[in-house]
Amino acid sequence: MKKLTLKVKPLDMETGRNIVVLHEDDAEELGHFAGDRVTLATPKITIVAIANATRRMVQQGELGTFVEVTEALGLKLGDEVTVSLAPRPQSVAAIKKKMTGQQLSSEEIGAIIRDIVADNLTTTEMTAFVVAEYIKGMGTDEIVALTRHMVDTGDTLELDVKPVLDVHSIGGVPGNKYALIVVPIVAAAGLTVPKTSSRAITSGAGTADVMEVLANVTLSLDEIKKIVTRVGAVLAWGGAVRLAPADDIIIRTERMLGVDPRCQLLASVMSKKLAVGADHILIDIPTGPGSKVEQIEEARDLARDFIELGHRLGVQVESAVTYGGQPVGYAVGPALEAKEALETLRGNGPGSLVEKATSLAGIMLELGGAAAPGLGRQTAMEILSSGKACQKMCEIIEAQGGDPKIKPEDIYIGEKKETLTAPQSGYVTHIYNQRINDIARAAGAPRDKGAGLRILMKEGRKVDKGEPCLEIYAEHETKLDEAIAIAKRYPPVKIEGMLLEKMSSRPRIW
Amino acid sequence: MKKLTLKVKPLDMETGRNIVVLHEDDAEELGHFAGDRVTLATPKITIVAIANATRRMVQQGELGTFVEVTEALGLKLGDEVTVSLAPRPQSVAAIKKKMTGQQLSSEEIGAIIRDIVADNLTTTEMTAFVVAEYIKGMGTDEIVALTRHMVDTGDTLELDVKPVLDVHSIGGVPGNKYALIVVPIVAAAGLTVPKTSSRAITSGAGTADVMEVLANVTLSLDEIKKIVTRVGAVLAWGGAVRLAPADDIIIRTERMLGVDPRCQLLASVMSKKLAVGADHILIDIPTGPGSKVEQIEEARDLARDFIELGHRLGVQVESAVTYGGQPVGYAVGPALEAKEALETLRGNGPGSLVEKATSLAGIMLELGGAAAPGLGRQTAMEILSSGKACQKMCEIIEAQGGDPKIKPEDIYIGEKKETLTAPQSGYVTHIYNQRINDIARAAGAPRDKGAGLRILMKEGRKVDKGEPCLEIYAEHETKLDEAIAIAKRYPPVKIEGMLLEKMSSRPRIW
Repeated sequence: MKKLTLKVKPLDMETGRNIVVLHEDDAEELGHFAGDRVTLATPKITIVAIANATRRMVQQGELGTFVEVTEALGLKLGDEVTVSLAPRPQSVAAIKKKMTGQQLSSEEIGAIIRDIVADNLTTTEMTAFVVAEYIKGMGTDEIVALTRHMVDTGDTLELDVKPVLDVHSIGGVPGNKYALIVVPIVAAAGLTVPKTSSRAITSGAGTADVMEVLANVTLSLDEIKKIVTRVGAVLAWGGAVRLAPADDIIIRTERMLGVDPRCQLLASVMSKKLAVGADHILIDIPTGPGSKVEQIEEARDLARDFIELGHRLGVQVESAVTYGGQPVGYAVGPALEAKEALETLRGNGPGSLVEKATSLAGIMLELGGAAAPGLGRQTAMEILSSGKACQKMCEIIEAQGGDPKIKPEDIYIGEKKETLTAPQSGYVTHIYNQRINDIARAAGAPRDKGAGLRILMKEGRKVDKGEPCLEIYAEHETKLDEAIAIAKRYPPVKIEGMLLEKMSSRPRIW
Repeated sequence: MKKLTLKVKPLDMETGRNIVVLHEDDAEELGHFAGDRVTLATPKITIVAIANATRRMVQQGELGTFVEVTEALGLKLGDEVTVSLAPRPQSVAAIKKKMTGQQLSSEEIGAIIRDIVADNLTTTEMTAFVVAEYIKGMGTDEIVALTRHMVDTGDTLELDVKPVLDVHSIGGVPGNKYALIVVPIVAAAGLTVPKTSSRAITSGAGTADVMEVLANVTLSLDEIKKIVTRVGAVLAWGGAVRLAPADDIIIRTERMLGVDPRCQLLASVMSKKLAVGADHILIDIPTGPGSKVEQIEEARDLARDFIELGHRLGVQVESAVTYGGQPVGYAVGPALEAKEALETLRGNGPGSLVEKATSLAGIMLELGGAAAPGLGRQTAMEILSSGKACQKMCEIIEAQGGDPKIKPEDIYIGEKKETLTAPQSGYVTHIYNQRINDIARAAGAPRDKGAGLRILMKEGRKVDKGEPCLEIYAEHETKLDEAIAIAKRYPPVKIEGMLLEKMSSRPRIW
């Protein structure tokens, strides 16, 4: 193994991982290619770093060390470091094996996941893994191992109760604030629901963004445990805790490529749920045009995969295929959705939201043994109507440091407002999910909590020309203008006459 | 499309491409993910850059600009730049199409290759392309398009003669200095051979490294054209000219993954040859244990693919499958190989090298019409024996700025030398190509021109215990020691008794 002794030139920049820069001639002498790993040794410490070759930043004989490496090795200008090529991690052989379509053993998957979490893979290797997963897929044994290793390489929530319920929506539908209704209903029945959720990525608000309007969602694992033990539930931001952290890293690569390998989706959802100790899990699969899963057959397939995977992982999974072809409820955006959720808990919610929330909560009540089979939905409805769910939500809000007495009308909504009206009479034949998201985001959501929109009519409604159909809210005038421009250019509500096509009985005369 | 106006914070570092750094909150507001592209606009200029999100190097509202971006936009501290998400290049859709196994059109492949050459793809996208090529492969139509677009996106050598001959060895065998014999033989017959070649990557010397001992190989396209026009041939380093530059970029990713997609190998070789205007091409496929292609069937497949591809590209290709199970000739390392090549041209070369070189030259003479079918080898042998090839080599060396009067004994060989002897009597049953390369590189090759080794016996030779079997040469004592240590630990020459296995006729008695 070739070794070079190079003189340290500290580079005053943090890169987020161990990176060094070599002169191209030195790199060539080592037999090095850009992005390879090198072993860096001082008399006391040895570490591995990613090395880039350049002709610019360092001279031959010099080693440019970014802040992380400079600190890890305690280096200063002119110190000597022995540099040699580091072998590829063993997990790279497993990634190549998956590229050739072979099944990976649990050990091989474990090696990959551990190296991902330890930041031992280069961008190239990480991408190769995701592309191989996407093209070659994984069998159930592999997905089971993938899920387990993703859980094992992160923190876990250890609760002293059984059962532990959880619910996850695979997303893709705007205004999906269901969790703020479902979680308090289920907890009000005495069940335990440690719900973690994400912030919005491409939508106007994620569950964590909405809950943050009412309480603190950035909680440590200890805080989550204390809150769940006291009030039976939490609505926390998953990004604040290290639950299955490999998932978050893998998802970054998936997003850059715009792919979502089925095996990774399954393992991703299940690992987050297992990490909080859930043993009874409901998976909501919104389905319909413009949602993540467009076809009902595909949704059913996915539902079956989740159930099978749960079985193999020793937890009970049920799946609900829900209608995701248009927004749930009317409100989109953190504050507007929080307001709608509070209204719903106070018995004044939109039909679609009440129906979805009580249906999902009903399944969970049956799963957790708090309702007899077939009676879940009815029990959920009773808990909601009785005000017990609302009371539980107040407890959750208080436990998370919010104001338990908050009323819907207390919630600050952006003061810049515009109402868009129907350009013609007819029927609402479609609402475009993606356009709704784009408008809400242009208005400032989810960063501006008060920004977003309210849809005033849903699919099937008759509408007269000039009737209001959309309200846009923003905190800043310029963002309101931007949102209006997008709404006018790409109308989110499709209005058509009932007579979609006119057939003439008179023959044409040429 | 969301836009942010950020204040410039120049970062004093060159990165080799357009890269900026955003604060994570700004990136989130843009809807940005690490490695995404952003459009940067000043009142005068708009460019696209790769953007990384961080919480460390810049504050919210700041845009960290590395040297390339700072210069391209003419920025200084505090200037304002409008930042928005840039769309993915269209070629990314084509890459995703290949990931799903679909055939790409010539337009789609052209978009990918143009974006590779223009440095428009992120590392993630580039990797996805190579992995998709590797897993899904390409049909002949696609490889034809790939080759053509790789040629079109680079410089080309335009010669006014026909035919233009060329030869390429797909490599993997040490000591393969055949080109220094073949090219002058073919040129001595009046044919045109604009030979470009590479430097060593994992071996002790590439053809360019060997030729550099005798003459300058870093030539511009103009210089190559002048030399070829004058003496009929050149032996230049391909890395100094922009022939099919996409290939060089793609190969970097292939090496990082340790994969060599068949379609890319084919297009890579053919594009380099087409770029110099070759219309009659010989492909040498060394085959045997420890070479790139280990099985003869695989070599034949590859040979057929090259011939078919040539046919589709309108050039005549012949393939030669040669024995690559042990080094060609005895010498490995730039100076040692140059010396052996000169000796061979002067009629004093090792049998294996003479045989390989005259066989390949013979095929080329027939291809170019300078020898009747079936008489190529004999003609090549006559040209070599007559001294005409040697004379032509002197002309080439002189044209490339070297000393045409150089004699084998003038070549400087490293003065630190060690001779290793046979540890036992027996027969040489195998020589390990990879170990030979490792020892030569440890001794300093190809960087130290005088470093390398000479094998003193080839496969099949009878050897007595204590008889010299390997000479290692180095320019530096420490490197010699390193090479010796490797040779002792991993003996490159396998010596066994003639009786490989003893069968007993006496039945065992339990």
